[in-house]
Amino acid sequence: METLPSYAEDIDGGGSPSVSMLSEVAASRKITIVGGSIPEKASGQLFNTCCVIGPDGAILGKHRKLHLFGINIPGDICFRESDTFTAGQEPTVVDTDVGRIGIGICHDIRFPELAMLYRARGAHLVCYPSAFNMSTGQLLWDLMQKSRAIENQLFVATCSPARDPNPHSEYMIWGHSSLIGPFGEVLAAAGHEEATVVGEIDLSLIEAVRENIPLEMQRRGDLYRLVDVQKEYYAS
Amino acid sequence: METLPSYAEDIDGGGSPSVSMLSEVAASRKITIVGGSIPEKASGQLFNTCCVIGPDGAILGKHRKLHLFGINIPGDICFRESDTFTAGQEPTVVDTDVGRIGIGICHDIRFPELAMLYRARGAHLVCYPSAFNMSTGQLLWDLMQKSRAIENQLFVATCSPARDPNPHSEYMIWGHSSLIGPFGEVLAAAGHEEATVVGEIDLSLIEAVRENIPLEMQRRGDLYRLVDVQKEYYAS
Repeated sequence: METLPSYAEDIDGGGSPSVSMLSEVAASRKITIVGGSIPEKASGQLFNTCCVIGPDGAILGKHRKLHLFGINIPGDICFRESDTFTAGQEPTVVDTDVGRIGIGICHDIRFPELAMLYRARGAHLVCYPSAFNMSTGQLLWDLMQKSRAIENQLFVATCSPARDPNPHSEYMIWGHSSLIGPFGEVLAAAGHEEATVVGEIDLSLIEAVRENIPLEMQRRGDLYRLVDVQKEYYAS
Repeated sequence: METLPSYAEDIDGGGSPSVSMLSEVAASRKITIVGGSIPEKASGQLFNTCCVIGPDGAILGKHRKLHLFGINIPGDICFRESDTFTAGQEPTVVDTDVGRIGIGICHDIRFPELAMLYRARGAHLVCYPSAFNMSTGQLLWDLMQKSRAIENQLFVATCSPARDPNPHSEYMIWGHSSLIGPFGEVLAAAGHEEATVVGEIDLSLIEAVRENIPLEMQRRGDLYRLVDVQKEYYAS
């Protein structure tokens, strides 16, 4: 965490080698890219930021991580992402050539409300670039992404760095980038090594699943309601 | 489903053999029982109902299933629980000798909002008597109960009938009753046969987990809020 500020990039100011690289690749291949997350510097602050790039190479959307991770186990580990980063101020839904995509980063996946809010805003797919460690990976990785997909009857994609082959690495990453369907089915998944994974999404499956088991209609708005604060409407 | 009305029980009128049996067992053993679910008849309606019995044999709480299951896959299966049952009108939290318990029945587990609302009302444990079938069992059983426990940092117990040993049974049950801790850890679990499972709950673990990873404080009330409608407060 200490070294992050030294390689933070100025995305809005055009000083971002990572985004330039992603833009070139997106434009040359004419594809949409959800581009992982990088430390972003803006107005004297640091954000944990993911850019979505369209097939013309332009930035379609930029998500700043909303839920900063913090853990405090006295005598073992104390870590506060908020010591380094500022949290983003808005949920991010991006309309792309391949559907409407909601973005979350890592710890954002642990909050069911965010994915529910994305579903209510019409997302077909929620992407979570993440870097779970070995213990949170084992406990939560598979579980959280399947739950978000099943609860909201949409697609979920997670993208993780590969595990460091050096067993003495300071931060061992779980890996296992995945693409999950609206039944919680695994459509594609990497192992923990570097890999390219190809999965196919049939967007019509969303409507089919929602017609088969109409969770939306089964919700109890008379007992609970999720408010999408910025849109000022009930998301459930 | 067609035969259910014929053995529905009148719990409020004292005409419930199931509850009488549970009361006797609870009183003679001086224990608290969350007693599965039975068809209840009341004011000309049928409910899918679970009773919580205290160590003196008295009914401490009664939960009527809130989310009735419905599925419609044309040419395959069409089933609406609401054809037979009326949905309950309130969430159920019961204070017992062994902690504050929120109750859900089967399909209630698929709605994250209910467990979140129970957490906000101070539940230590959410119990879901359920009867998942083989396909929903495989897809959802383990996943949903672990997610509800992890998201809310509390204990979750599920109780299922055993699987019918007759392979031609009309409704094959998944089984696998479980007790899950606030990290999503399995504290005890049955297989698919009839079994008595004993698990121990250390309630102090709830506070420890919540201090270690303060999900509540990390929630973004400026972006989303879950309203507990009957209590008229925000549950998140």
